[in-house]
Amino acid sequence: MPVFLDATDPEFEQGFTTLLGAKREDSPDVDDTVAAIIADVRARGDAAVIDYTARFDRITPETLAISSEEIAAAVAAVPAAERAALEQAAARIRAYHERQLPEDAEWTDAEGATLGWRWTAVSAAGLYVPGGLASYPSSVLMNAIPAKVAGVGRLAMVVPTPDGVLNPLVLLAAQISGVDEIYRIGGAQAVAALAYGTESIAPVDKITGPGNAYVAAAKRRVFGKVGIDMIAGPSEILVIADAENDPDWIALDLLSQAEHDESAQSILITTDAAFGKAVAQAVDKRLETLQRRAIAGASWRDFGAIITVPDLTTAAALSDRIAPEHLELCVADPDALSARITHAGAIFLGQWTPEAIGDYVGGPNHVLPTARSARFSSGLSTLDFMKRTTLARMTPAALRAIGPAAETLAQSESLEAHGLSVTARLRTLND
Amino acid sequence: MPVFLDATDPEFEQGFTTLLGAKREDSPDVDDTVAAIIADVRARGDAAVIDYTARFDRITPETLAISSEEIAAAVAAVPAAERAALEQAAARIRAYHERQLPEDAEWTDAEGATLGWRWTAVSAAGLYVPGGLASYPSSVLMNAIPAKVAGVGRLAMVVPTPDGVLNPLVLLAAQISGVDEIYRIGGAQAVAALAYGTESIAPVDKITGPGNAYVAAAKRRVFGKVGIDMIAGPSEILVIADAENDPDWIALDLLSQAEHDESAQSILITTDAAFGKAVAQAVDKRLETLQRRAIAGASWRDFGAIITVPDLTTAAALSDRIAPEHLELCVADPDALSARITHAGAIFLGQWTPEAIGDYVGGPNHVLPTARSARFSSGLSTLDFMKRTTLARMTPAALRAIGPAAETLAQSESLEAHGLSVTARLRTLND
Repeated sequence: MPVFLDATDPEFEQGFTTLLGAKREDSPDVDDTVAAIIADVRARGDAAVIDYTARFDRITPETLAISSEEIAAAVAAVPAAERAALEQAAARIRAYHERQLPEDAEWTDAEGATLGWRWTAVSAAGLYVPGGLASYPSSVLMNAIPAKVAGVGRLAMVVPTPDGVLNPLVLLAAQISGVDEIYRIGGAQAVAALAYGTESIAPVDKITGPGNAYVAAAKRRVFGKVGIDMIAGPSEILVIADAENDPDWIALDLLSQAEHDESAQSILITTDAAFGKAVAQAVDKRLETLQRRAIAGASWRDFGAIITVPDLTTAAALSDRIAPEHLELCVADPDALSARITHAGAIFLGQWTPEAIGDYVGGPNHVLPTARSARFSSGLSTLDFMKRTTLARMTPAALRAIGPAAETLAQSESLEAHGLSVTARLRTLND
Repeated sequence: MPVFLDATDPEFEQGFTTLLGAKREDSPDVDDTVAAIIADVRARGDAAVIDYTARFDRITPETLAISSEEIAAAVAAVPAAERAALEQAAARIRAYHERQLPEDAEWTDAEGATLGWRWTAVSAAGLYVPGGLASYPSSVLMNAIPAKVAGVGRLAMVVPTPDGVLNPLVLLAAQISGVDEIYRIGGAQAVAALAYGTESIAPVDKITGPGNAYVAAAKRRVFGKVGIDMIAGPSEILVIADAENDPDWIALDLLSQAEHDESAQSILITTDAAFGKAVAQAVDKRLETLQRRAIAGASWRDFGAIITVPDLTTAAALSDRIAPEHLELCVADPDALSARITHAGAIFLGQWTPEAIGDYVGGPNHVLPTARSARFSSGLSTLDFMKRTTLARMTPAALRAIGPAAETLAQSESLEAHGLSVTARLRTLND
């Protein structure tokens, strides 16, 4: 049974706080193991990577790289409908992320100083793709396309192939996205190889993509040597719905997060208590037959919630406290409600926009901030594969106008050489 | 003696690799101590913070907050010239960072899907300011102004006051920048208080600002609960200069990084070996009298380098391998050389733009990526205090056009409820 809360109940605050604080994930402490694997890969390179691959994936590859012939053979088996779906998704994701390309700027101010900035792409990026059940072609599109749109010259993908089994759709997604190199490795050893390089894998500058506890720990460890994306927690959805919705649609939207993971969380906020009950019944009905009913059922039972609110103002305020990864607004005027929301990774407006559209083909990225981190962070974007260099150019007149302030502040901070570097130039001008 | 290298020397690559790999900082392992402090602050709140403040700063404050009366009394003592310099710097930094405010976007595509994104400010941010010698008013401006330009509603600053001594310029910089609350605390206990909150300090969503090893370890630990900025390493400058420069100016620019810290690094790349020698002599001469000659001398001796190159093409290539925090281009056509640089935190164009201008009054931020991280990261900006929510709205027609691809991909990924959430809606449309 999910939690039922009523925002007008005197004990609501306590129940809501408990819901917000629910610890949904036990991260096993694998840091020592991961540290040893990274040190080994740094010391022994390919040989270490091959050893770990033999141990964890039960294969001893002759080459770490998956060859273009292997890729071609695998992707040839993909049915036309799936290829078309991937291509449609890729085109839409590409179009969205191209709009995120930032603009350079340069201007000259009243003092004659020319200022600005310039964006450039990361030179080489690595994309981690999990193996097995969590090996999602859609994740390949969502990570690889922004990198290529940003202009990353070299995009290297790693994907473990337990027992040597290749995933044709993952390889096809990589091909469609423009991935340049693919290696049949996974785990902390793959992250280490990307960060530090081996004989057969050149190091990259940034690593993105989801993974298990070992991969997450390895990404944390190599952060600083390379850039990383966020460390994602279990998925979440918040649906705000009025009574004018089909309870079954809303139930399926809630279940589409719950089926990801037993630690996922699905919450409904509704202005109509009877509608909330109808959704709960529809969830139970769908759970009778859903393929992943064990996972979805556990998630819904342990972390699901249905909250009744007196009005949408209350709904918006509670939503901001949850800061959801995914937020669906199934109300009469979703744009008006959206304008009152400050913290959310992605907003899906209106009943014709199920969250699953955003997972695959909407266009926006599906890598989004979890665990209330939408308060301070954003989903993956083209900008994550770029960096900004600031630019400044003084003229003698500009230095005359602003140099004295720098001299004064340098003196205040007891940084004499800072001040003298300005003073020496100003003296020449004044001579 | 700094290292002298010649890019045409057969052994250059070895020397340059050694220079790149030089370990300049020993980070003491204070993680266990910091973990205990954070746990204590979470458990005991203000009482724990007050205990640590008594132990480390030798004061037992009645209130953690520095009152507006205390601030007013302290800043009244600031001389007019220093106030004017801070105000000029603040105005220029504000003007630069206002240009970084990102634009929202919304468009409707050919399928009828309305897509876009919206930027919002972080609600509450915390700014760490070190105590003692490293307590720089310019750092307050560089962290606080972007936050306020972004629209951060509540900006809380922490600054330790060892033995109860307030720093008037730091307080004035905070006042000019619009800081909302100031607390007389520092160290890991201050970071914990900002991240988790105490009775007298409400928690924030993001923490920025420099600090010692304890502060850095605490920021790493609270990352995830709140956002943090980068963990900065020792400062660096690379100057690329031709022979048409005053050796003393270049020497002062190199020393203005070296004087920060014995671990700082200053490198000159020049097309003229004789000019390189002249700069080295000028550095030595300045080191005879410089106030911070002990620090600057140690940095220059241990990590300084002068590299002679045959041409500016080689200089640009080496610069990208260094990926410097600060890059000064003192050459005839700095814009042309700048266009060939990919990795740098900030570029200073031409001989009238000493790096110190950028530290104080240029306008761009002085919080910049160190330790070669300009390969994948950027300096602090207005964007660091904002986050982006993606938006998607389907119409029935749009869902008909792209929904089937989502159904296909959901099926491929064995995520049935994802597919059904689309199928249920399409069925209604097709009925």
